[in-house]
Amino acid sequence: MNAIERTIRDWVIANRILAQNNVLDAYGHVSMRHPERHDRYFLARSISPAIAEVEDIIEFNLDGTPVDPGERRALYLERFIHGGVYEKRPDVKAALHSHADDLLPFSISRTIRLRPVIHNAGDMGHDVPVWDIADKFGDETTLLVTNMEQGRDLADCLDRNRLALMRGHGFISVGRTINDLVRLAVHIPRNARVQLAAMQMGEYKPLSRGEVEARLKLDPEAPTMKRGWEYWARQAGCEALL
Amino acid sequence: MNAIERTIRDWVIANRILAQNNVLDAYGHVSMRHPERHDRYFLARSISPAIAEVEDIIEFNLDGTPVDPGERRALYLERFIHGGVYEKRPDVKAALHSHADDLLPFSISRTIRLRPVIHNAGDMGHDVPVWDIADKFGDETTLLVTNMEQGRDLADCLDRNRLALMRGHGFISVGRTINDLVRLAVHIPRNARVQLAAMQMGEYKPLSRGEVEARLKLDPEAPTMKRGWEYWARQAGCEALL
Amino acid sequence: MNAIERTIRDWVIANRILAQNNVLDAYGHVSMRHPERHDRYFLARSISPAIAEVEDIIEFNLDGTPVDPGERRALYLERFIHGGVYEKRPDVKAALHSHADDLLPFSISRTIRLRPVIHNAGDMGHDVPVWDIADKFGDETTLLVTNMEQGRDLADCLDRNRLALMRGHGFISVGRTINDLVRLAVHIPRNARVQLAAMQMGEYKPLSRGEVEARLKLDPEAPTMKRGWEYWARQAGCEALL
Amino acid sequence: MNAIERTIRDWVIANRILAQNNVLDAYGHVSMRHPERHDRYFLARSISPAIAEVEDIIEFNLDGTPVDPGERRALYLERFIHGGVYEKRPDVKAALHSHADDLLPFSISRTIRLRPVIHNAGDMGHDVPVWDIADKFGDETTLLVTNMEQGRDLADCLDRNRLALMRGHGFISVGRTINDLVRLAVHIPRNARVQLAAMQMGEYKPLSRGEVEARLKLDPEAPTMKRGWEYWARQAGCEALL
Repeated sequence: MNAIERTIRDWVIANRILAQNNVLDAYGHVSMRHPERHDRYFLARSISPAIAEVEDIIEFNLDGTPVDPGERRALYLERFIHGGVYEKRPDVKAALHSHADDLLPFSISRTIRLRPVIHNAGDMGHDVPVWDIADKFGDETTLLVTNMEQGRDLADCLDRNRLALMRGHGFISVGRTINDLVRLAVHIPRNARVQLAAMQMGEYKPLSRGEVEARLKLDPEAPTMKRGWEYWARQAGCEALL
Repeated sequence: MNAIERTIRDWVIANRILAQNNVLDAYGHVSMRHPERHDRYFLARSISPAIAEVEDIIEFNLDGTPVDPGERRALYLERFIHGGVYEKRPDVKAALHSHADDLLPFSISRTIRLRPVIHNAGDMGHDVPVWDIADKFGDETTLLVTNMEQGRDLADCLDRNRLALMRGHGFISVGRTINDLVRLAVHIPRNARVQLAAMQMGEYKPLSRGEVEARLKLDPEAPTMKRGWEYWARQAGCEALL
Repeated sequence: MNAIERTIRDWVIANRILAQNNVLDAYGHVSMRHPERHDRYFLARSISPAIAEVEDIIEFNLDGTPVDPGERRALYLERFIHGGVYEKRPDVKAALHSHADDLLPFSISRTIRLRPVIHNAGDMGHDVPVWDIADKFGDETTLLVTNMEQGRDLADCLDRNRLALMRGHGFISVGRTINDLVRLAVHIPRNARVQLAAMQMGEYKPLSRGEVEARLKLDPEAPTMKRGWEYWARQAGCEALL
Repeated sequence: MNAIERTIRDWVIANRILAQNNVLDAYGHVSMRHPERHDRYFLARSISPAIAEVEDIIEFNLDGTPVDPGERRALYLERFIHGGVYEKRPDVKAALHSHADDLLPFSISRTIRLRPVIHNAGDMGHDVPVWDIADKFGDETTLLVTNMEQGRDLADCLDRNRLALMRGHGFISVGRTINDLVRLAVHIPRNARVQLAAMQMGEYKPLSRGEVEARLKLDPEAPTMKRGWEYWARQAGCEALL
């Protein structure tokens, strides 16, 4: 199997796992950078991630135009999120846009920031910026990211981090590998739930700066870090694609 | 397929999707206006929505009497909710009465109002009125809407809005199309959960007036707005009816 | 089918529905009074309710001894709960002991009482007493109700009500018919969740005294009140027993 | 079936039950002491517990080295948790390391301790210590227990108790039998949820010292205490191994 075939299979697995774990549902999407053409990425046609198949994949230029000028299928309005991130961050190989409920309260809070509190979400990093589309694009948008200017502004907000919240909308997250992204994305909502509950009891201990750094240094492809990928693929019924 | 057949099929799909997404359960009901006779609507006989089939549909006059005088099946006690809404709101093509748990705390709170806080529930509108049956009908009712006078009073409370809470009971919601209604109804409970959690953390940002207006202007039948409908129908096992 | 066969079938359905709706799990139990011998009741041998079958039923005297002196199967330690209730309350035809999580916070709170806040749990009644086994039996019990003295004390606490919480343990609920019990039991945990969430937002409106009375006057066997029974039986895979 | 075969089958059942009840997921692990060689224990190769089979079991020395020097499969990085516990506690026959979400807020709270509040978790004991890896090993770890020194330190914190929380990470729990461990582990997250909700309502009553002692004296292999084991095994699809 060549690198492109491997990428496409992994992309299908990622869609299934993220849906199975309620990170994606009818909406949201996950992309992977083209393994040989760093100025391109793979993303689905406009379809719910849980049912995306190999034939639903489309190859995009970073500006959000399909590589195939004959492409006629409906496209995600928000595909510019992915191009913005791949353009700004050469280290990123996979990106995700999700509406997972547990993150949303943190996206609209005026007082509380999401912080890493559980070890397996420690590599979300020290800082989780919150992007408010109204800051630059006014308060009459639909909150959707519908052009490259908005996609780039969101990527600027993400900066060197792994996760950015989008006010009243959801979040984006990125990975050095697809497993790196998926493993983190499964644990981020849990971190949010734990932080919310701990706050309801009073003062709590987040991970220290040193612990976050130690987590970020873990090899995302080590057996321990891949254990989830293999299990979730099996739970999601796509073990055959591993 | 003619307009009536299409309406009935869509009505079955809506029942399945709303049950699958826990908007309806053993109780609650969804109706559609007759596509050719605006003084009639379709609603199930007294049956749980998750198991409603084409043959369970009954055609009603707006006053809640079956069009067929020979109809002998048990009817929903609360069918007057639907007639009241269709009578007052010519723009409404589909209506829903639900008991979804997440909305209920907002229906009984003396201090907090439900507000749009997430983009995909933004078209619930600026204002979500709360109807208390006791205001006009006294405090010895069963809280059920059992006649046209009550149905009309509820519709008056709904007014030009898309959603009204019913104190200690549930909510009604309406749509310009069946998909418009279903898509919103799936996201309303999520909005309630996010608002409750955000409130537990302190001050938060709801959607702005301009954002709500922008959401309300979206075409409810655009591909982005229909993506959920197709996916949920598949999840609910009624893809064949699409 | 005679009254005893009907009772036993209904008892199996009730077990399945209560398990399917998370009112019972590995533990807890539901009983029915013998339809012809009011001094006897039916309860399972020591088995998890979700998997109880017709052949698992045992006929008991009110004092918790099996009618068949040759009965050798393991019995529920807490069967005395049921005898205590049937002895004190001739109007009761079905009784339930559950550990459902959502009720437990109200069973240990020193400040807050469970109150009816949603219409479909309105017939839990005005008052929900809390029984603390330590009040009469000291603070060195296992919290289990293991003899008739304890069962009678619990029944005295329940008094004329439909529901009583057991501190740190669970609750008992009773019905005039099995459907009356099951329908209420499915909605009680929802009432608890709604009340807890509403309290987190500040002041709230419970059902009025008149509304509770109106709910208590509803015929538990009316079509509206049985709609859930039929649906849940189907969901629980025992439609054939209806 | 000899004692070793019985142990291995029980270990598979325990894996399945704990996964089915969300105590374990992709991560976490359960072990059993060797029934004939008290200086050895059984634990899986590096695999998600829900899919562990008989052939995935590995026999370990207490120091975390496989008994078979030819063992080449990937091992859990955190296996030292188990050796530390078995070394310190001769009474312990089964041990568990879990990341269950509901416990985590209590592991990071600076103000609130987990306490037994529901009867079926009463045998968690009076005291639930919280182990913070940073106390002895600094704040630059990944929070993982990766050597015997850390495993022993955690076991020292556990001391004579049945449960210890691990800050920002999860918990360990131990049993006199595998059923003793599994039954408790299923109820611990429920206890945490109930305590959190009760705290949100104000003052509450935990179990008394006498009640905890009474619970700890129950025979973990009595029919009442085994009812869950048999039911959960059936739910988890491994009834045939009973």
